Order: sequence, then C-alpha cells, then structure tokens
Amino acid sequence: MDLKYLNQKEAIAVDQELFNEYKFSVDQLMELAGLSCAHAVAKCFPAEKHPRILVCCGPGNNGGDGLVAARHLALMGYTPTIYYPKPTAKPLFENLSHQCQQMDICDVKECPSVESAARDYDLILDALFGFSFKPPVRADFVAVVELMQQTKLPIASVDIPSGWDVEKGKLTECDVEPALLISLTAPKLCARQFRGEHHYLGGRFVPPALQRKYELNLPVYPGNELCVKL
Amino acid sequence: MDLKYLNQKEAIAVDQELFNEYKFSVDQLMELAGLSCAHAVAKCFPAEKHPRILVCCGPGNNGGDGLVAARHLALMGYTPTIYYPKPTAKPLFENLSHQCQQMDICDVKECPSVESAARDYDLILDALFGFSFKPPVRADFVAVVELMQQTKLPIASVDIPSGWDVEKGKLTECDVEPALLISLTAPKLCARQFRGEHHYLGGRFVPPALQRKYELNLPVYPGNELCVKL
Repeated sequence: MDLKYLNQKEAIAVDQELFNEYKFSVDQLMELAGLSCAHAVAKCFPAEKHPRILVCCGPGNNGGDGLVAARHLALMGYTPTIYYPKPTAKPLFENLSHQCQQMDICDVKECPSVESAARDYDLILDALFGFSFKPPVRADFVAVVELMQQTKLPIASVDIPSGWDVEKGKLTECDVEPALLISLTAPKLCARQFRGEHHYLGGRFVPPALQRKYELNLPVYPGNELCVKL
Repeated sequence: MDLKYLNQKEAIAVDQELFNEYKFSVDQLMELAGLSCAHAVAKCFPAEKHPRILVCCGPGNNGGDGLVAARHLALMGYTPTIYYPKPTAKPLFENLSHQCQQMDICDVKECPSVESAARDYDLILDALFGFSFKPPVRADFVAVVELMQQTKLPIASVDIPSGWDVEKGKLTECDVEPALLISLTAPKLCARQFRGEHHYLGGRFVPPALQRKYELNLPVYPGNELCVKL
C-alpha cells in the first residue's frame, strides 16, 4: 500500500479531526511536531558541523513548530537564532516565544542579507508557511522568502517548503529548494516534487483509526524514533 | 559536580518556576514527560518481551504522565491497559483519557488481583503519586498499591515509587520496589534509596538557567535522546 500524499482539503480535515474528535490540544501536537523537526535536523545536520541555525518563523502554526524546534535544538547543543517578523498575538505563541527568550535563544529583528546569513549561520530552518498558505507572500515575509531563494545555505523546511503550493508544489523556478523536508503527520501532495537530499516524516501521534480512515499508509517508525526517513 | 537530589520544597519550586516564570503549559511538559517515560520503558523492557503493560494512573499530574506514556507506548507497539480509579474532572485529564480511548487503549474498572495481573500483564507502569504525595494512601488507591507491593511483575515508576515519601523514601519494608525508576526533571531525595536495576532521568526540557539556579548538575543527554541513564 502506497504512502498517501494529502491534498489541502485532506490535510485540513486530518488536522481538524486531531483537535475536534481526538481532543488533542495545539500545545501537545505542536510540541511533538517541533520536537520531531529538531530530531530530523539532528539526523541530517549534526550540531558539530551545523551549530548555528537561523529559525525563520511565520505567523501560524508552522511558525509555532519552528519556535518549539528552536528550543529543543538549543537543548541539543545547537545555537539557534530566531527571526519572527510577525509574532502572533495569542497566548500559545507568546508563551513559546517567551520560553525561547528565557532559554537565552537570540532573535534578530531584521531579515539577514544573503551575505550576512552565509557568514553567521550554517543552516536555515524554514518554519514560515504550512498547508494553509495561499500566495502571494505578504509584505512582512518577502525579504525572508527571497533570502531562502537566494542563499546557498542548506534549508530544512517544516511540512511545506515555504512559498510552494501545498498541492502544485513549486510555482516558479526560483522557489525555495530545501535540502531537508520534514513532512508532519503525513506528506502533502507538493512533497512529490521534493528533490532535496533528505525527506523525513515527523509527528508520531496519528492514531491508528485516523490513519485507516484517510488510508495514510504511514511507514513504521523505527523503535522509539520520533521521525522516519521516507 | 554531583547530581542534585531535590527535596520536596525544591521539587515544588522547580515545577512552579517552569509554569510561572518560563510559561510552559502543563500540556507541553506532561507530553514531554510522559513521552520520556515511554522511551525509558522501551529501553529497559522491549515490546517483544514485555508487550502488555498495566498503566496505573493516580489523580494528579503523575497520573497524567501515565496517560501520555500509555498513548506513546501504544504507538510504539505495546498493548497498554489503563487502570485509572479516580479520573480527574479537569479538561486536560479528560482529554488525555479520551485520546487513549480513541486509540483503542483498553481500561479496567476494577483493580486486578495479583494472580490475574501475573497472567494478563508483563509490566506495571506506576503513575500513581508524584512528589506532592503525603500518606496515608486514600481508599481508592489501597488495592492498587497493595497489588504493586505484592506482584512479582516488574514495575516502572514515574518520578516517585508510589507510596514512598519524596524525601525519606520507603516508609515500610513492604513498600513498592520498582525495577525502573524514571526521575523527571531532576531526581528527588527518595531516589537515593532506589535499589532497582534501571534508573533513568527524563523530562529533557529544563532550561539551562533553571538548572544553574537550583544547581541541578544534570547529566548530558546523549544525542537526541529524551532520557538518560543515571
């Protein structure tokens, strides 16, 4: 049975069901999702070689996953720096930001240039937009999307390479090309176009009945791993 | 620098600081704590040899950790069964129970006898009481504490072997003797009396500044592991 690649409607439905039917809280699933992203990064880009990570966080849940990942990466020996141009004015996101600040994780208020990013970081964690993204990119995020399009640093994208259409994938030739894609819960249709080196699945929390209902045919996670190579 | 063993006052203070100063939610930390318990169980009692786990949940946060651990153990190939004699009437706990039910995790309404437990289970996860426990054991929990005192099944205790004093440890000769103790955040004083085979530390979320403030001298977690052998 082939692994299912979700269209946008299915991705939204699975997400809603986790919250409404299974009664998971956003806090719970975001913590597990962000942690699995940190683990996938650690597998592909060990801290010894890629210690300095620019974590780019968008305004929604994808950005929240990035804030969680930044915190766990810091605990795992990385030096993350957060760029969060439009912080979300909700208690969950304010608390996630506060936790990072209290853990002495730095943030930058201006988007780094391609040159300064190349000097200051070893990897970019792209936690800008998730499966609800619809173009065009809003003004606050144009600079960071351009940075990710132009940089030669490796990029790790959370769930969706930012700017890609959740179903159609790349919309232009210059779109972001991540080296690592961490699909969460189940891969989305756009992931079929992913040509980077590492594709991982994270978010090991999907109840078996939900997997069956949507015929996800997820791979078996090895042992107690929180992510699995696709 | 020696690993710190917390007295009750320190354990409460660290806990309060995580919520009040660092603004973690209970959902977040319970998810990480319970997940680390599941991982420690998997390290010491592989599912191939110990598939059937009776998860005994108390009325407080220790019980919540048990509900989270049960869910992750189910995703990791175990068959947990929950005994939760006094479910806590708060949304967090109701939701954690609901998640387990929706994942087809069975529960039992009556405490199993020593004989039936020996027949039906391979391990008991003791998530009854945590560092706020003060004797005597209340009526609802007498049977399960007696089961754990009398069973020959291996017991894995979450944070504190249930019935032990958080500082003084065993109060009577017949007190529970777990084979695995998973200390959460930092070990409590009673853990000095632990004589079982496996002692793990879980709860990899303690911010470095908080570690310094309380001079916890936690060991280094290897790689991306969520628990570390003490």
